[in-house]
Amino acid sequence: MSTPQSLLIDDIGVLVTNDPALGDGPSGRIEGAALVLAGARIAWAGPRAQAPAADARVDAAGRCVIPGFVDSHSHIVFAGDRSEEFAARMSGRRYEAGGIRTTVAATRAASEAELLANAVRLLREARSQGTTTLEVKSGYGLSVADEERAVRVAARLTEEATFLGAHVVPPEYADDPAGYVDLVTGAMLDACAPHARWIDVFCERGAFDADAARRVLTAGLERGLLARVHGNQLGPGPGARLAVELGAASVDHCTHLDADDVAALADPACGTVATLLPGVDFATRQPYPDARALLDAGATVALAGDCNPGSCYTSSIAFCIALAVREMRMTPEEALWGATAGGARALRRTDIGHLAAGARADLVLLDAPNPVYLAYRPGVPQVAAVWKDGALVSGSTGAAG
Amino acid sequence: MSTPQSLLIDDIGVLVTNDPALGDGPSGRIEGAALVLAGARIAWAGPRAQAPAADARVDAAGRCVIPGFVDSHSHIVFAGDRSEEFAARMSGRRYEAGGIRTTVAATRAASEAELLANAVRLLREARSQGTTTLEVKSGYGLSVADEERAVRVAARLTEEATFLGAHVVPPEYADDPAGYVDLVTGAMLDACAPHARWIDVFCERGAFDADAARRVLTAGLERGLLARVHGNQLGPGPGARLAVELGAASVDHCTHLDADDVAALADPACGTVATLLPGVDFATRQPYPDARALLDAGATVALAGDCNPGSCYTSSIAFCIALAVREMRMTPEEALWGATAGGARALRRTDIGHLAAGARADLVLLDAPNPVYLAYRPGVPQVAAVWKDGALVSGSTGAAG
Ligand SMILES: [Zn+2]
Ligand SMILES: [Zn+2]
Repeated sequence: MSTPQSLLIDDIGVLVTNDPALGDGPSGRIEGAALVLAGARIAWAGPRAQAPAADARVDAAGRCVIPGFVDSHSHIVFAGDRSEEFAARMSGRRYEAGGIRTTVAATRAASEAELLANAVRLLREARSQGTTTLEVKSGYGLSVADEERAVRVAARLTEEATFLGAHVVPPEYADDPAGYVDLVTGAMLDACAPHARWIDVFCERGAFDADAARRVLTAGLERGLLARVHGNQLGPGPGARLAVELGAASVDHCTHLDADDVAALADPACGTVATLLPGVDFATRQPYPDARALLDAGATVALAGDCNPGSCYTSSIAFCIALAVREMRMTPEEALWGATAGGARALRRTDIGHLAAGARADLVLLDAPNPVYLAYRPGVPQVAAVWKDGALVSGSTGAAG
Repeated sequence: MSTPQSLLIDDIGVLVTNDPALGDGPSGRIEGAALVLAGARIAWAGPRAQAPAADARVDAAGRCVIPGFVDSHSHIVFAGDRSEEFAARMSGRRYEAGGIRTTVAATRAASEAELLANAVRLLREARSQGTTTLEVKSGYGLSVADEERAVRVAARLTEEATFLGAHVVPPEYADDPAGYVDLVTGAMLDACAPHARWIDVFCERGAFDADAARRVLTAGLERGLLARVHGNQLGPGPGARLAVELGAASVDHCTHLDADDVAALADPACGTVATLLPGVDFATRQPYPDARALLDAGATVALAGDCNPGSCYTSSIAFCIALAVREMRMTPEEALWGATAGGARALRRTDIGHLAAGARADLVLLDAPNPVYLAYRPGVPQVAAVWKDGALVSGSTGAAG
């Protein structure tokens, strides 16, 4: 019987635990803190004067420690590049033949090794910026074989693999969208469900309407998948209400919600998180969601990145936090909570997104004295070190030069 | 007689030279390029098939090379932290005792070694993000001894040190602002001019009016300093017109320009650059300047960072480029030009901001296939390697994992 190696992270200027029982406010903030990791888990968190002994010690030198970012929304299984389409959109030039279908064609043409290599590159990039959990969706295959391949690649990267065959109707079904829903809920679901934890659907004008989305999600739920929804991105629509109705874990985007949508999401009996993706609104020059309405009504608000080559090619959750503060008037505390504990709720996970004893040892040491710096210093890399499951996976623990 | 060691950077996917004679468009773009460095200078730039031999070779592996960023506006000689003030401002809470004077008090209380260490830290941070030239201002001392110390620290970091005694009227002159202008143009200028290349003034309601600003700039010009101006940040005002009138190299901020200001800056005989600082507008939730009006009228537009602890604590020029594209409708090309060649013009430098033979070998290898990625992937660190004066000063040249 061996005891796991323990590590004391000492002299933490500000520790964000996200456990109100451990410190101040909803983020359970402790000044002058220490943290003990034992194997893959947190063993202890509290004021440094009370820290227990450990086998090894790291000096945080007054810097800040936060839970690793839980990014509950990404589309990193793809091939190709849409920088020209981005430049044209931002410059107000016409650009033909852009959109998701460009990425679908490139993804289908790529080998599985290429898809995996590209996704691994982006996963590492996200991790080096503090993301310790990343949900990964299919959705650029849109055939049974291509979706099955994409979900299989996603499942090699994360426990949070999502089947998104219902991302958009592919060109070959342009005249038979109902036939595509039959495929998604039939042979495609059969092929993909064994690799996925989640089923997702893009419920939006031009993608899937409420009835089609309900069919997709219901079929997934019946196969034991959990539901999540893309909704209310481009205009008002039924996505948020459908997510609540079906008990989905999250409805993502929420750029266009009406008062009834907000009330439904804020209902104490509602288990659906509102996940906001401000990077998308930034990169598509859309308005931002009304985060304050959701927060003030009592809804649970998460922040996620939506890394994808079309509408938002960022892997930086710190950037999304800065946008949430500037554009959506979330406080720095609300934004960080949304990108950690909020993301965990959006993934129905209790073992991540906080740093109480027993939680996974997924955490970030910042080159900054307090967590406000994530928004106070936009664009500046401030992640000194990242631990996942207790292992140092990026950066180093030495003080900055 | 020794020949400097030469270095071939080969297989550059896209090379931005900013020399229209060398490639396409105003940015002199060459696809499939190579670059030869000899000592501290560029020896050759062109299509890789025509590249001359060199002593050593680096493989860019299809990645993009751009001129190093020329950030013509920073305030990195300071002490203290204003993250609480930032959080309060962004959250709509009242916050007493904030503002520049907080930083003045902390800066005066710090030792010269502390000021230098903090500034070096920020300079290195900027360099690792691709900034190869950084202008550095005084302006948080506001006494003869404290300004002289600040300009001396700035001059240890950069050739582009700026005397900004006329940043704000310090508390001890609150009842005698004219007396403070006497000091700035008298004993303070005597003490600071030997260390500085530039004189600057904050010409704005609440700081210095047109007459006071004219006195400050004229006194500096008579001492052989070159002039630059902070103007038109918080509201319409005389700053831009005064800058043009006195032949200043740049007027910075330009958030509130009227049609006459734009026309004056666009006059072909005008040698004054309009330097936009979108990070400030981001971090203070101000409107953004009308970059399109300036560009479409024919003015020279630069982008700079304005790194300072109060109104914009970013050192990321890539972030400023992403904002310029999203919020100010600059094209990705215009934004990159503004942050390189534009910055050089704002500093009256012909040896930097471009990569033609004879220019300083100040350049950046991006982990990206083309320069649009700076805006296409906001917040993501994409600087692989930085050379200054021909020396690799940050990063490495190996391909990303
Ligand atoms: Zn998405
Ligand atoms: Zn300034």
